[in-house]
Amino acid sequence: MRAFLPSASSRIAARFFLLCTARNSRTSAAPHPPVLLRLPPSTPRWRRFCSVGAVTTGETLGVTGTGSAEAGERVREFRKRLKIAEVKGGPSEGVDRLGERLVVRGWVRTCRVQSSVTFIEVNDGSCLSNMQCVLNSDVEGYDQVEAGCIASGASVMIEGILVNSQGTKQKVELKVEKLVLVGKSDPVAFPIQKKRASREFLRTIAHLRPRTNTFGAVTRVRNSLAYATHKFFQENGFVWIASPIITASDCEGAGEQFCVTTLIPSSGEDTNSPVGSIPSTKDGAIDWSQDFFGKPAFLTVSGQLNAETYATALSDVYTFGPTFRAENSNTSRHLAEFWMIEPELAFADLNDDMACATAYLQYVVKYVLENCKEDMDFFNTWIEKGIVDRLSDVVEKDFVQLTYTDAVELLLKAKKRFEFPVKWGSDLQSEHERYITEDVFAGRPVIIRDYPKDIKAFYMRQNNDGKTVAAMDLLVPRVGELIGGSQREERLEYLEGRLDELKLDKESFWWYLDLRRFGSVPHAGFGLGFERLVQFATGIENIRDVIPFPRSPGSAEF
Amino acid sequence: MRAFLPSASSRIAARFFLLCTARNSRTSAAPHPPVLLRLPPSTPRWRRFCSVGAVTTGETLGVTGTGSAEAGERVREFRKRLKIAEVKGGPSEGVDRLGERLVVRGWVRTCRVQSSVTFIEVNDGSCLSNMQCVLNSDVEGYDQVEAGCIASGASVMIEGILVNSQGTKQKVELKVEKLVLVGKSDPVAFPIQKKRASREFLRTIAHLRPRTNTFGAVTRVRNSLAYATHKFFQENGFVWIASPIITASDCEGAGEQFCVTTLIPSSGEDTNSPVGSIPSTKDGAIDWSQDFFGKPAFLTVSGQLNAETYATALSDVYTFGPTFRAENSNTSRHLAEFWMIEPELAFADLNDDMACATAYLQYVVKYVLENCKEDMDFFNTWIEKGIVDRLSDVVEKDFVQLTYTDAVELLLKAKKRFEFPVKWGSDLQSEHERYITEDVFAGRPVIIRDYPKDIKAFYMRQNNDGKTVAAMDLLVPRVGELIGGSQREERLEYLEGRLDELKLDKESFWWYLDLRRFGSVPHAGFGLGFERLVQFATGIENIRDVIPFPRSPGSAEF
Repeated sequence: MRAFLPSASSRIAARFFLLCTARNSRTSAAPHPPVLLRLPPSTPRWRRFCSVGAVTTGETLGVTGTGSAEAGERVREFRKRLKIAEVKGGPSEGVDRLGERLVVRGWVRTCRVQSSVTFIEVNDGSCLSNMQCVLNSDVEGYDQVEAGCIASGASVMIEGILVNSQGTKQKVELKVEKLVLVGKSDPVAFPIQKKRASREFLRTIAHLRPRTNTFGAVTRVRNSLAYATHKFFQENGFVWIASPIITASDCEGAGEQFCVTTLIPSSGEDTNSPVGSIPSTKDGAIDWSQDFFGKPAFLTVSGQLNAETYATALSDVYTFGPTFRAENSNTSRHLAEFWMIEPELAFADLNDDMACATAYLQYVVKYVLENCKEDMDFFNTWIEKGIVDRLSDVVEKDFVQLTYTDAVELLLKAKKRFEFPVKWGSDLQSEHERYITEDVFAGRPVIIRDYPKDIKAFYMRQNNDGKTVAAMDLLVPRVGELIGGSQREERLEYLEGRLDELKLDKESFWWYLDLRRFGSVPHAGFGLGFERLVQFATGIENIRDVIPFPRSPGSAEF
Repeated sequence: MRAFLPSASSRIAARFFLLCTARNSRTSAAPHPPVLLRLPPSTPRWRRFCSVGAVTTGETLGVTGTGSAEAGERVREFRKRLKIAEVKGGPSEGVDRLGERLVVRGWVRTCRVQSSVTFIEVNDGSCLSNMQCVLNSDVEGYDQVEAGCIASGASVMIEGILVNSQGTKQKVELKVEKLVLVGKSDPVAFPIQKKRASREFLRTIAHLRPRTNTFGAVTRVRNSLAYATHKFFQENGFVWIASPIITASDCEGAGEQFCVTTLIPSSGEDTNSPVGSIPSTKDGAIDWSQDFFGKPAFLTVSGQLNAETYATALSDVYTFGPTFRAENSNTSRHLAEFWMIEPELAFADLNDDMACATAYLQYVVKYVLENCKEDMDFFNTWIEKGIVDRLSDVVEKDFVQLTYTDAVELLLKAKKRFEFPVKWGSDLQSEHERYITEDVFAGRPVIIRDYPKDIKAFYMRQNNDGKTVAAMDLLVPRVGELIGGSQREERLEYLEGRLDELKLDKESFWWYLDLRRFGSVPHAGFGLGFERLVQFATGIENIRDVIPFPRSPGSAEF
């Protein structure tokens, strides 16, 4: 154990160890190497909450004593404290643990004082379910109930025995032996009251809304979708790439961009920034040479072009990171900041791309249905009736595929009247997409491919007909376009020709064109707005309610 | 199979199906539902590369025919094309697949033409190893070798039989039967030449550097560290939170921030932006009310405060996203844009925090040692001799823990002379940290805790001594501080007192203080710079070489 003793400065170290051993001997009789974290090397350890005894009750919530730890004290192992999901999340819903003594830590959802017994519902965010805690007036800590401190929003630590529940809502409940108030919550001031708060109001308290059933469930499902995304791509040999967030590359052109600068004083406190203090050239233009990057820089709108550089070296890659649009659209479908997933496949064509998108979507939806049952039942009951069936259909049924040209034909023959006219060469509007997914194909995901080249981006591969490109959009009911992808133009002369047609500056695309100059390969990819996916999987209507802190025009709080 | 036929518009749909069936009958005799993607619902499917026959050789690399797909064509399953890692990555290094006919797709690293036989080394990025392809002059496609087209950087598709290798460098090689040039590469113009290019030069071609051994290996190890991070936290019940990137919250104060604005014209093409066109108030100040968010907004420097809001609802959470510093430091240790991992644990103290950080670091390092053996051997040979042993020590040995006060005592007693003076109350410099990790504790990770409160952030929990806070830094050799964390001040009155002392505006912290007003709990967390972790795990000295597209002063290319 002492093999690690340093040779170089062993004398100093030895003195140091002695010092610590001496201190340590106050709490431990047996000698042991005191300055070591006692963490064995094997699998990850679970955390144990170590300050139970030290938490005081009432006004001060202090965990006393933790600050007085001295060098040489053994650090406890990373052990898990009990979470409610572990008790109630299994197939028996807790029955297998009857009779166990447990400690539950979390936040009070409700406290009902009845004549002979008091019910406290505690939630710790590990699952939707609360632990129902039942206590008599002789229980240690009951004075906190009498004092009115066990109110909605307060944090508690409750110890008791797991018993069969008398109620019908749950199979088990906690027969309380000890109640500790950790952090109080003034029931009048606490902004989340029992009556259902509006989503609009909850957005103004985005720091507290995860304590509600709906936002807790959204957060857990969002987390599962993110993890399932990584699992899917990793299991299929894709490599995660961090595409850059700030970029001075002006070749994206996929939307309005935010400018990133240090020319404007960056102190948040002094918002009184004189325009005249911005460095300018002789003729009054902004002097970009003095900016942080020496030129104008922007927030990325897509990592695709960067991902292509890695796909043409590592074969299959994906990005998963934030992207930005400075569009002034205050709708329930747009965010100024959102997360995007962009896989890019080398030696692949549009068919591979569609197959990958389909397999991906089925994988992550299946993952959520299997791993978030309780939350999905909640959405099925309270947010969108039938969502579980709708998602099961996505997993089990085949996707529909048709060309843009056939889609237009379908729309032209439709009995339905559309607000926007249908014409070959115009982009499909959401009313058109909705008609196709919801009416024609009864709620199945639909892939439309081979769009007119003039309504699609320059990098999409031209089809042999000279009119269309190898693009595809995957449409789902309610959300509309969930995935957009394409085979990329890998032929140098076609890509340069397209840039010329669109009067884009070839010089600024030098590195993108290099991928076609040196060992070009057919490749394809797609982009998926992660928040749209969360909407699709939860039924939540407003996109601002599926991201923790939504950013939109006029709104960047928290 | 036709149960999904829509009832609402069945006539139109039926006509549509007929149309497609008719088209489809050209290629398929047996009738089948033509507009369906034939993707069964079960586990993820593997992609098959479907365009082999269509890829032409020589000057044009076109995958012809893929654009001519029509609605009704069956889309192929998501099947994996073969990657070199699957052949050579197993314990037998390919011997178990001897005699198999394989198709390898990738980029030519070298082509050696000898009198009787030609060797082509092909890499597809799935692993460090190339596939050595051996061909005689009578092989189909050999004319491409004779024409000099199979040069370094070109992309190829090579079919052959896996045989025992005659050489000593590998156990198997491909006896080529067919060679197809997919994308040529002018050997003179291709910027990555055989002679070792400098890292500085490779940064100027960041779009091509992943095609080198070093950057391919870094990318794979980086990917494994990221995935291991998600696995560790997910397996331990943490929920991933997307902390916001853009924030108007001015309460972070952890470093210089980039301003995010739409007041400056955002078109990348027109860099001639007159200062006078920026909206201003009567007295010449920037009129923030006209900016996108209606007030100054910045790029985040940390997601911690936001993560705390979710930890006090869902118990254990973590962020993994980009963060930014507008510091004008052009060093090998700083980036303007970097990825950060910030777990936050509820009902936890500093001991839990240190234990979690230790378990996390040991988990991800172990994961990389086990899953990236070939790449780690490469780093061990070419980048940092002994790195595998150093990392194994991290996994297997206990971490050292001492207080800041003891660390200062150690430094004061050191025989070594330091550039910066050692004094209780001053922050430790990297020479001090290096002395402790490298000299005193012989390369072990060291956790220093309980720093003076005056050199640490306002949110750290005050210890009972009145002088220190429950902060900890985890130091590792070579990299220095890898992790910094603390128990957070959960006591409202202490936190408000600290804000007053530091003359910070309590108003702007209203939501952060709310967490202490309503159900406050002891909680703790830490932050880890992901690129520092990649440096630590690969031995790469310059942080710009462990992120795909580094951003630093004057540099935001690609």
